[in-house]
Amino acid sequence: MKKVFRIDLSYDGTNFLGFQSQKDDTKRTVQLELEKALSLLFKEPITIFAAGRTDTKVHAMHQVISFKSALTIPLEGLKKALNSLLPKDIRILSVSQESPSFHARFSPKKRAYLYILQSSTPCFPFEANYSWEVPFYFSLKKLNQALRYLRGTHNFIAFCEKPSTENTIRTIYKTKAYKKGDHIYIYIEGNAFLRRMIRIIVGSCLQIAAKNLSPKMIQELLTKKHRRENPFPTAPPQGLYFYRVTF
Amino acid sequence: MKKVFRIDLSYDGTNFLGFQSQKDDTKRTVQLELEKALSLLFKEPITIFAAGRTDTKVHAMHQVISFKSALTIPLEGLKKALNSLLPKDIRILSVSQESPSFHARFSPKKRAYLYILQSSTPCFPFEANYSWEVPFYFSLKKLNQALRYLRGTHNFIAFCEKPSTENTIRTIYKTKAYKKGDHIYIYIEGNAFLRRMIRIIVGSCLQIAAKNLSPKMIQELLTKKHRRENPFPTAPPQGLYFYRVTF
Repeated sequence: MKKVFRIDLSYDGTNFLGFQSQKDDTKRTVQLELEKALSLLFKEPITIFAAGRTDTKVHAMHQVISFKSALTIPLEGLKKALNSLLPKDIRILSVSQESPSFHARFSPKKRAYLYILQSSTPCFPFEANYSWEVPFYFSLKKLNQALRYLRGTHNFIAFCEKPSTENTIRTIYKTKAYKKGDHIYIYIEGNAFLRRMIRIIVGSCLQIAAKNLSPKMIQELLTKKHRRENPFPTAPPQGLYFYRVTF
Repeated sequence: MKKVFRIDLSYDGTNFLGFQSQKDDTKRTVQLELEKALSLLFKEPITIFAAGRTDTKVHAMHQVISFKSALTIPLEGLKKALNSLLPKDIRILSVSQESPSFHARFSPKKRAYLYILQSSTPCFPFEANYSWEVPFYFSLKKLNQALRYLRGTHNFIAFCEKPSTENTIRTIYKTKAYKKGDHIYIYIEGNAFLRRMIRIIVGSCLQIAAKNLSPKMIQELLTKKHRRENPFPTAPPQGLYFYRVTF
């Protein structure tokens, strides 16, 4: 019988065309690198599933993947072997065996993302790929107010790009924007997220906070039926981190 | 009469083929980007000089450059204009006007470099370009002992790559290796440094500290007359930061 394996990992999204493999498998994706290394170690083609499918240039502080194999490999040895086989921009944090019902994509109860903004002047050159140097002033208080209107269960269709599913209802449990040192962190936790959803939320709430618009505009946008009815831009990918999964 | 300008800046060396422009000016260098922006703003060809000419992939937390121009530009406006013209991996910290004798390359009394090593397992994927994940264990105490033998005035010819000058005598004032969080920092301060000197010092001292060799070997290497008489490898560039200049 096949066993279910779980791998916790982090990766630097800078040089990846996202997590998910594309039809054209000449593109460098996190999935491709992981499946290549796992297939080599497990001596059979391995297909993985992820808790969060991050976009091009989006990072993961803590991603979880799962896959099945009939082979038994000592777990500590597997972690070491993977870290030596994989490129340096993917690092394995832990490897474990799970119950047969575990599935990294379908089992998560909560997912959390972190978006990092640079707020100092001049900005730090080492962070061009790791945060967004926001080119305008905004009110942190207004940003938090706008984010708060997103909490709860809503149809987030105006906050997503080409939905791959017909169900665009999601639940957001927590939102928080806070300053720490030279950075502003935006924490968003929900059951699941649609394509580009966090980046459109960040882009929209920041515009409201920058242009002194009413945070209540978010309420109105949640009644819209298409991304193009949301006038706000999508925040760039490099500030976004897949942060935590709760099973 | 021409005025002397000083610019303090930091840059991420990852995507540069070093500081200094090469004959083939299709190569992306820090000097090329700076001279392009400055020549545009000063409306004449500007040639800059740097306190430290860093190699490919080597970073600068605090670099200083100087140049001459007859034009007067308000300094605060110049800083802003440069930061908006320059790519995000170069950030201007300050701009000032100096006395006519000031020269970023010839005026410095001291230069300091920092080399950053990762010591945690697993290593952080976001740092592949910003520190060296040392693949072996070493003693921090031995590393400090080996570094200490480098202090003073010596002929560092066995610690440099193709010297561009006949004078390979340099003075090292301070050396210090210390652990902080998941990193080990190696701080080296001297009057000036030869090509690859810090990376060869780090590579040599780490081998001594890893293989439990005598730190006194450094004393012996300081009597050699060529890099090939030093058996130790050069540390990789991405862990190295030009850190401070004292005028």
